[in-house]
Amino acid sequence: MAEKIFDDIRTLSFDGVGVTRESYGRGESAAGEYLREFALSEGLEVEVDRAANFVFRQPGLKADAPVAWVGSHIDSVPQGGNFDGLAGVVAGLLCLVARQREGHTAALPLEVVAFRGEESAWFGKAYMGSGALFGKLSNADLELPQRETGEPLAQYMEKVGADIESIRAQQILFDKSRVKAYLELHIEQGPVMVARELPVAVVSGIRGNVRHNHITCLGDAQHSGVVPRWLRHDAMFGVADLIMRLDEHWRVLLERGTDLVVTAGVVNTDPAEHSISRIPGRVNFSFEARSKSTDTLEAFYQLMRAECAAISRERGVSFEFDRRLLSDPATMDEQICDMLSRSCVAQGTAFEVIPSGAGHDASLFANAGIPSGMLFVRNQNGSHNPHEAMDMADFMLGVQVLSDTLGQLA
Amino acid sequence: MAEKIFDDIRTLSFDGVGVTRESYGRGESAAGEYLREFALSEGLEVEVDRAANFVFRQPGLKADAPVAWVGSHIDSVPQGGNFDGLAGVVAGLLCLVARQREGHTAALPLEVVAFRGEESAWFGKAYMGSGALFGKLSNADLELPQRETGEPLAQYMEKVGADIESIRAQQILFDKSRVKAYLELHIEQGPVMVARELPVAVVSGIRGNVRHNHITCLGDAQHSGVVPRWLRHDAMFGVADLIMRLDEHWRVLLERGTDLVVTAGVVNTDPAEHSISRIPGRVNFSFEARSKSTDTLEAFYQLMRAECAAISRERGVSFEFDRRLLSDPATMDEQICDMLSRSCVAQGTAFEVIPSGAGHDASLFANAGIPSGMLFVRNQNGSHNPHEAMDMADFMLGVQVLSDTLGQLA
Repeated sequence: MAEKIFDDIRTLSFDGVGVTRESYGRGESAAGEYLREFALSEGLEVEVDRAANFVFRQPGLKADAPVAWVGSHIDSVPQGGNFDGLAGVVAGLLCLVARQREGHTAALPLEVVAFRGEESAWFGKAYMGSGALFGKLSNADLELPQRETGEPLAQYMEKVGADIESIRAQQILFDKSRVKAYLELHIEQGPVMVARELPVAVVSGIRGNVRHNHITCLGDAQHSGVVPRWLRHDAMFGVADLIMRLDEHWRVLLERGTDLVVTAGVVNTDPAEHSISRIPGRVNFSFEARSKSTDTLEAFYQLMRAECAAISRERGVSFEFDRRLLSDPATMDEQICDMLSRSCVAQGTAFEVIPSGAGHDASLFANAGIPSGMLFVRNQNGSHNPHEAMDMADFMLGVQVLSDTLGQLA
Repeated sequence: MAEKIFDDIRTLSFDGVGVTRESYGRGESAAGEYLREFALSEGLEVEVDRAANFVFRQPGLKADAPVAWVGSHIDSVPQGGNFDGLAGVVAGLLCLVARQREGHTAALPLEVVAFRGEESAWFGKAYMGSGALFGKLSNADLELPQRETGEPLAQYMEKVGADIESIRAQQILFDKSRVKAYLELHIEQGPVMVARELPVAVVSGIRGNVRHNHITCLGDAQHSGVVPRWLRHDAMFGVADLIMRLDEHWRVLLERGTDLVVTAGVVNTDPAEHSISRIPGRVNFSFEARSKSTDTLEAFYQLMRAECAAISRERGVSFEFDRRLLSDPATMDEQICDMLSRSCVAQGTAFEVIPSGAGHDASLFANAGIPSGMLFVRNQNGSHNPHEAMDMADFMLGVQVLSDTLGQLA
């Protein structure tokens, strides 16, 4: 059943290279409509919520009944893969269909949510569907232009039936108190589980990040031949020194069990003045640290600033920083993590508890105080590309773990 | 006398910002003509050689008599300083005028050469005037276009009277065997002498260099959030690691007394794929090492390659190299260096023996087997800019040292 759903939705959103399911656009709506038809054919009830997300449930559930939510998203990046997002929605539906077919009643009823608009690729903004539910879309967000048409997000959301006035008023569009737990299954987007041969993994938290888009290291641009080492103010040596100091701190922190990744994604000597025989006088670079701990982000950030100060003294360079950007990490609920782990053990599978480096809708639920948990399923070749490769056996194992965990919720 | 010559030539080549004495062009010719008039007024003889350089001597010197040459160049970069090149020619002329006025005869007679076309700024090629004398200008060199007019070097040289057919045939245009020594006084182009408070310095050698214009470090571009340190192949961390390893080797080699400067003048993550949240998969950079020792250049180059190999193994990246470019260093004659040093001692001045990082006409003479020596005069603010600042007292001290040294030559 799962394989047919994946295949059908891949077919209806295939773009010749990968799948394209535009946020609030054609491919995403087609996937949602397909899932609605499927759910109805299984005797389930389908609702489109005020943010135009799809909500699936067994018929007869009282409107104010406490529930567990299983959710993920149905949009994709352009020329993306079929499993990023969709796998979590299908997993939830399989659990719901099983309950419906078996007439099974759990202590906590289940609703499955297929979010729209999770990918930032279309409007430059992520978590639009879940963000709208939490009243977190600003007016500026709603004016963001679609990458191809330039038309604003608000117009796209309205077209698919979202209550744009309430969203614009930043109202919370659902009864948070009903949702006792939020669970999300997602393919892993990194290479860890393949490398460690883990079919599933329990997500401990979703990393936040601290960033500078632009840091400038300033030195003294001079003829490379005539300035000896002790008189140089080499901006490139300054930046290389910084990166290596951060790499060493990173290595040591990892050995102490700290969760951290560090990236200098953009590094450039100044094209206006650089040359092979000139000491670089200006280097522009970006800084990003990610961790599931806010304390780690803050501490590592201060370490970075301290190293910049030390390098400035030692190398006679200086650093200039643009605005610091901080994105909060989200911690998954400890009890739910334990339940997921117990379910993995019950299934007899190898697993580990690992952090998620990429962001997910689950982070909004966790940071809103709703106990949340995530399960990763092994996936080759990363995500956001047509080469995603999730093994169906791994996926079905993930569905079993999810179903077991839902059964433990009360 | 010196001050008037400098002032007059500055005035006739002033461009509103600095001085502009185009190689084989207006400013250079104006400076040469001024010096010719000056020399004639002092009773000296002036010859234009087959490469259109100006040669000054006392009258009555036999054509095949052994001589010492004092030379430097009379061109400048666009909006350059007044002393780069000209100081050496004026210094030589002051020595020659003194001999002429005093009726002094030295063991070894003196000729002063004012070279044209030393700066690479105009045709992208340095040492054209001295190079032509040594038969070292290729056909390709002679076709190089002037930066402003696009007309070829050959045409420019011919216009000022050079024997372009012989130059094209790469004939040696002077009797090398006559020239027993070549001396050149030049302003220092770096900051060492100002920092060390040295009015003059003896040049031990002219650095050569080994270069790669383009090295590429290849890693694996991935989402920065999802790949932990042990699975990363970060091209930027690879390059930063290389730069810091080279910096450490450089530091240790300097402590052992090795002459070396190391520069990575151009470093860029790939604009086609870099982003703040992406591990760099490709970094392009340049490499340059300069030393007065060919052995050091070769050894340091091999060290660089060995570190690239080590980093490739440790970080899972790889390095791709374009063509290696080698430019030979020139060693100044030990005896002449000793004479220059003794003259400094005799003048009671502080001095040191330092290498020249930038190139000079003297390197062609040294590498042609003619015993050569250089004396640097202190200069603030570097060269190739209007802010060159040579103190006249330092210059006259340099002239004294030069004159004393010429007196020691036999």
